[in-house]
Amino acid sequence: MFIDSLKRIVDNVEGGIAGLVMGFDGIAVESYTREGHKIDVNTVGMEFSFILTQVRKAGDILQIGDVLEISIKAEKLTIVIRLLSHDYFLALALGPEGNYGKGRYLMRVVAPKLQQEL
Amino acid sequence: MFIDSLKRIVDNVEGGIAGLVMGFDGIAVESYTREGHKIDVNTVGMEFSFILTQVRKAGDILQIGDVLEISIKAEKLTIVIRLLSHDYFLALALGPEGNYGKGRYLMRVVAPKLQQEL
Repeated sequence: MFIDSLKRIVDNVEGGIAGLVMGFDGIAVESYTREGHKIDVNTVGMEFSFILTQVRKAGDILQIGDVLEISIKAEKLTIVIRLLSHDYFLALALGPEGNYGKGRYLMRVVAPKLQQEL
Repeated sequence: MFIDSLKRIVDNVEGGIAGLVMGFDGIAVESYTREGHKIDVNTVGMEFSFILTQVRKAGDILQIGDVLEISIKAEKLTIVIRLLSHDYFLALALGPEGNYGKGRYLMRVVAPKLQQEL
């Protein structure tokens, strides 16, 4: 199940706040927020699903192959997005002091399992 | 000078291809491409200056503070962007096997110097 994979990522990374699997149409398949955190992970995902679509368009124009991963580091939140298929992506939200490298690693490890289930 | 800082980043990172300082309006201040590489770094920058603007808008909506850094990993190219000010950003293009961590590190080191000159 998606929720187990999301928990595995979010709970095992320092500073992990939330994770979700979402379609490029902005509709979430599954999301998980770590206890004690308040984040509207669906709204975050929706905002970035639009940006992802723009990034893919730019990638097509520039002929740099498929976009695999996007990271956005802001003052209060880091968002790591990994594309799962043409239609779905996995996103992880981390606090500003979160372990970005470990988050990326866990997403890479868990992605094939999620891809099989999509 | 900007060109020295760009060379310092691009030439010192494994897989470094090109670097540029660009305004959010898509107009480059300075760019540098490593010898032996063919990349239209200005076109890459222009495409991503538009995306950066969208990311900043999303950041404002989500109230996650200022956007500091964006990375996009595609099959054939990795692009790392670091915001220098409200008007300018620094971008680095790396090959798919490039040393992403070192690239980010060098950009962080060089950024204050570029910010002083802007």
